[in-house]
Amino acid sequence: MSDVTPLDTVGEFGLIRRIQQTITLRQPSTKLGIGDDAAILTPLAGHDMVISTDMLVEGVHFDLTFCPLKHLGYKAVAVNVSDMAAMNAIPTQIVVALSIGARFSVEAVEELYEGMRLACEAYDVDLVGGDTTGSRGGLTISITALGQVAAGKAVRRGGAGPNDLLCVTGDLGGAYLGLQVLEREKQAWQADPETQPELGKYPYVLQRQLRPEARMDVIHELREIGVVPTSMIDISDGLASEVLHLCQASGTGARVFSENLPIANPTLEVAEEFNLDPIMCMLNGGEDYELLFTVPLAAHQLIKNHPDITIIGHMVEKSEGTNLITKSGQPVPLRAQGFNHF
Amino acid sequence: MSDVTPLDTVGEFGLIRRIQQTITLRQPSTKLGIGDDAAILTPLAGHDMVISTDMLVEGVHFDLTFCPLKHLGYKAVAVNVSDMAAMNAIPTQIVVALSIGARFSVEAVEELYEGMRLACEAYDVDLVGGDTTGSRGGLTISITALGQVAAGKAVRRGGAGPNDLLCVTGDLGGAYLGLQVLEREKQAWQADPETQPELGKYPYVLQRQLRPEARMDVIHELREIGVVPTSMIDISDGLASEVLHLCQASGTGARVFSENLPIANPTLEVAEEFNLDPIMCMLNGGEDYELLFTVPLAAHQLIKNHPDITIIGHMVEKSEGTNLITKSGQPVPLRAQGFNHF
Repeated sequence: MSDVTPLDTVGEFGLIRRIQQTITLRQPSTKLGIGDDAAILTPLAGHDMVISTDMLVEGVHFDLTFCPLKHLGYKAVAVNVSDMAAMNAIPTQIVVALSIGARFSVEAVEELYEGMRLACEAYDVDLVGGDTTGSRGGLTISITALGQVAAGKAVRRGGAGPNDLLCVTGDLGGAYLGLQVLEREKQAWQADPETQPELGKYPYVLQRQLRPEARMDVIHELREIGVVPTSMIDISDGLASEVLHLCQASGTGARVFSENLPIANPTLEVAEEFNLDPIMCMLNGGEDYELLFTVPLAAHQLIKNHPDITIIGHMVEKSEGTNLITKSGQPVPLRAQGFNHF
Repeated sequence: MSDVTPLDTVGEFGLIRRIQQTITLRQPSTKLGIGDDAAILTPLAGHDMVISTDMLVEGVHFDLTFCPLKHLGYKAVAVNVSDMAAMNAIPTQIVVALSIGARFSVEAVEELYEGMRLACEAYDVDLVGGDTTGSRGGLTISITALGQVAAGKAVRRGGAGPNDLLCVTGDLGGAYLGLQVLEREKQAWQADPETQPELGKYPYVLQRQLRPEARMDVIHELREIGVVPTSMIDISDGLASEVLHLCQASGTGARVFSENLPIANPTLEVAEEFNLDPIMCMLNGGEDYELLFTVPLAAHQLIKNHPDITIIGHMVEKSEGTNLITKSGQPVPLRAQGFNHF
């Protein structure tokens, strides 16, 4: 590191001034950004707003041993934008609260903000407010995102009906296997700090874990082809858990065909190397931040050839349960195995 | 404690369900509260929205040795509502992110939420979303508040002009002296755990520290008498620091008369007991969450007899500086001595 400035030499106000200089505002609804007691927004007429909050805690959600701060900043924004996508909304603003231990330098915090700035640019979001404070422990990042959606057009979890097609964007299991790679290399490094971590072999799964993208692209594409999901959720805890959420909220069951689950080749290779069942990685892995949604059967023609959307099954009556249908046609009840943070 | 349920026995979803049951929604702009990927709001036509975020960190902003969780929950909401008040806005919704160490029980978290619920009731605010996660360290509470204000009527820090009257609500220094009492009793208790803490003697300053109120009452009263502040800020870091913020943003100086600074009798008595200069406690103490604002000279008649507003000075040209005028008429430059959290 060439420059290392202790945080206490610039103080909270100094840090805010340094960060403020790097911020560009893009959204017409942003009237006043950082610098007052609150930001001022002018909501777009005829639109609803959506709001959600996510907290990332060092030692629970990330490990700075192998997670570059710039990626972490990007991911912290992306996971919040993913919640906006899951409502069929366009993200507009975020506010960021950080608590930072004294071991961090000003440059480290700026690196984190640089990642957030890149994500704000990628998703066309304004960073309009924040709170930066010390911490007796590690780093905690709390982001609240706002988004807008035409009045009444937000998509909830509870709108699916029997026969609706169950769809997923992108591919699954990559983020989980990226985490397995990082944990193996960390253990090897802890056992022998001279070891060079073998991370270059796994670019795909590591990117899935360290720098996931929110699927705003698919939200825009669905609008273009005129398909409105009947229910939607983003995949943060694992596909099985999210399918159960949709079914519970919609009062339906579902059939998910294991043969249809999308996995990328690099993910499959890492699963084999780690001797892990790829289906289990996809069902319970989590953190892929893909979208899981349902569409009316009539939309089949419109989405069946979409390169980023896979039809993995369909909704059924509640009484039929929520099942994974194996290759041999056997139904196996889906169970949520998302991890417990406590 | 009669009931102690470890957090990991109910998990994140179980905890959310328990908390969700206690929540009442009051705001007409809240269309959907907790339970989906995001809450849905319908902003009031002809209004701007304001948004701000505040994070409270155990060991930095609060000490659970003497801070009851219910008070802490109330305070966490009140300090965010105070930011809405400082913009001349009416608070409408909050979202809450918590990270909680494994040493907390479900009942402890419910106690914290009970305090937040009471504050939501007091300020007519809806709790519409949250994130609850584990922590390797202590408790962190991150709240984002939304408020509404007629379009263009938000009051910023930068609107004061020379000759505007500088006003403060309530009285100052109490929260700081409450903290001194708590710290003394904690030291006594650490030295001898048999000691009974002497807290009953100090109800006023302890309430100021542990359960401050946002001054929404004054915001409503100013509207009723037709007075619109030209600039406003809430007093979180200390009066001196906040006066400097208003002057810097407005491009003015200020004269603050030490004789006019409002202090409550119980606060004065504790200052004497601790041998602390009451003027310094008011200028640099912080955490009183009173409002500091400026009004045009013409509003003098309307506010001079208001029981909750004290005129402490007036704004001047920038070239005259920002000074405290002592009893003997000496100008002393104001300096920000707000504490550095890093």
